[in-house]
Amino acid sequence: MPSVKSYAAQSAETPLAPYTIVRRDPKPHDVQIQILYCGVCHSDLHTARGEWGGTVYPCVPGHEIVGKVTAVGSHVKKFKVGDLAGVGCLVDSCRECDNCKDGLEQYCSNGMVGTYNGQEKDGSGNTYGGYSKSIVTHEDFVLRISDKLPLEAVAPLLCAGITTYSPLRHWKVGKGTRVAVLGLGGLGHMGVKLAAAMGAEVTMLSHSPSKEKDAKRLGAHNFVLTSDAAQTKAVTGYFDFILDTVSADHDYNFYLGLLRTNGTMVCVGAPPSPATIPAFNIIFGRKSFAGSLIGGIPETQEMLDFCAEHNIVSDVEVIAIRDINEAYERMLKGDVRYRFVIDMATL
Amino acid sequence: MPSVKSYAAQSAETPLAPYTIVRRDPKPHDVQIQILYCGVCHSDLHTARGEWGGTVYPCVPGHEIVGKVTAVGSHVKKFKVGDLAGVGCLVDSCRECDNCKDGLEQYCSNGMVGTYNGQEKDGSGNTYGGYSKSIVTHEDFVLRISDKLPLEAVAPLLCAGITTYSPLRHWKVGKGTRVAVLGLGGLGHMGVKLAAAMGAEVTMLSHSPSKEKDAKRLGAHNFVLTSDAAQTKAVTGYFDFILDTVSADHDYNFYLGLLRTNGTMVCVGAPPSPATIPAFNIIFGRKSFAGSLIGGIPETQEMLDFCAEHNIVSDVEVIAIRDINEAYERMLKGDVRYRFVIDMATL
Repeated sequence: MPSVKSYAAQSAETPLAPYTIVRRDPKPHDVQIQILYCGVCHSDLHTARGEWGGTVYPCVPGHEIVGKVTAVGSHVKKFKVGDLAGVGCLVDSCRECDNCKDGLEQYCSNGMVGTYNGQEKDGSGNTYGGYSKSIVTHEDFVLRISDKLPLEAVAPLLCAGITTYSPLRHWKVGKGTRVAVLGLGGLGHMGVKLAAAMGAEVTMLSHSPSKEKDAKRLGAHNFVLTSDAAQTKAVTGYFDFILDTVSADHDYNFYLGLLRTNGTMVCVGAPPSPATIPAFNIIFGRKSFAGSLIGGIPETQEMLDFCAEHNIVSDVEVIAIRDINEAYERMLKGDVRYRFVIDMATL
Repeated sequence: MPSVKSYAAQSAETPLAPYTIVRRDPKPHDVQIQILYCGVCHSDLHTARGEWGGTVYPCVPGHEIVGKVTAVGSHVKKFKVGDLAGVGCLVDSCRECDNCKDGLEQYCSNGMVGTYNGQEKDGSGNTYGGYSKSIVTHEDFVLRISDKLPLEAVAPLLCAGITTYSPLRHWKVGKGTRVAVLGLGGLGHMGVKLAAAMGAEVTMLSHSPSKEKDAKRLGAHNFVLTSDAAQTKAVTGYFDFILDTVSADHDYNFYLGLLRTNGTMVCVGAPPSPATIPAFNIIFGRKSFAGSLIGGIPETQEMLDFCAEHNIVSDVEVIAIRDINEAYERMLKGDVRYRFVIDMATL
């Protein structure tokens, strides 16, 4: 079995550093991918540093993977050597439960297998992510990647893209929908682009005036400075849908107040503290407070095809892998517009 | 203008007692109704005792009103003298906002006028509810009542019925939907009957084994004793829809765990403490935590027609109005199966 160069955290306290992992030889349904770019997601940092608990070390993060197929198993039909391919947040699921049958593998009732820090269903152990030279994945969990878009900027679509696309689709955002996006980071900037491409009226909500210019460049039609009482009052009861990408603590009730009747606020970020919501705040106006987790494989492919059709990619800053620890520190300060992507040629 | 006998609270601390109010003479679009029965809702008690703040005294509660038309204004087309008629929780709204135009007068952006403790749009003052001999209401807010059902048992449909019917319809509960009803009181017992009539599989959730027999008599297919770990485990991730009628504090997260992927939990009761929900509890499984407030006039009529068609009424205990204060005390102890209704002939 091939040894593969990677970057791994050996413990919650140690920085990421070079490490050699072993990848399996492709089985009949496997696709072997040379990783060209891997996006850097906040989950990578949380997991590498053990902040969510349950991290198995050594930990090789990375679930925004794009690259080129270098080998395929004998039964693989979807891919051939030389094809572009992607791997997102999951590499397996039970395939038998209702959710898997519905293409909602991310909600697999028996537990999906994360691309890193997951446990392989065949008992072969811990999964290693995309901070590495190659990956071997069952073809059912490999995505087709268009050659029309810059590959480094496609990588973040595999997590940041699908995490925002899925709720926008599920709640039927489109022409005529008044959408607000909360938080202009890796997720939020994709939310703005995707909602605008779906035809919605998009408003960026932010307490920082400096975000306005960029939000509008990304496709937002309006900008509301939430620290300005007059601006806030003007959008009270206004939005059909709020996409909440913020993972720091914030007052959900303030934003619920901006929803119109039948409106929905969807969290894709999970702050440390629970939401505290008086029932009256959802009873008046028949409002919904909901959540959404990445997306299933069919929808991830749909999103990639949608992005290729609409020429949508992530705004990225490409880094060398030796700079990953510094990138984590900058990410914690919000100092990235809007996603770091590792050029795996630097490994 | 006619003087009308009623029962009123003169302050938050005094019991309800006889009181004479003045009702307006019917205007061209008004319907004058001799009240035959009026249901007793928890909101009556909360308002009479000033527990929600903002009660204007004297306060004549009651918004589950059925009776007989005794006079109509010159322009009234929907009703004639002698017809049965009902009045529910609201007697006016702005009629101009998007919600009013959509028949969602309960969410009127300019403030609907409650049947009691509301402020008339024409500036004529405080509204008085159904604990009285008659009421005068604009025809747009008067409901047609079937003569096929026992009138005293129809009265609670005007609040308890529509409050549970509306969310069941809005979230498209029907054949194949796995519905759980939480709380077997005035609202919950209507929720069970209505969801079953809509073709759903209905499960009563209760921590009291004594509720099982009655829940099944009312139409529940299943009963889950929530204090029994094995029974609870068997329905974890099971329900599409939970109708939560409980207005005492309870742990929403426990019940969110019983929802399957894409499930929705709807609150129609408002406990004193806010819901405290970690985002992960809705992110995993794409769950919604939502609220719903009574129903609009068109839907209330639809509900009344549905109940007439399916022979659905409330289980009631008819009382004399002199017993209203005792009824309030019994209601606080949950000692009513499942709705008190005042026989207004006793006034």
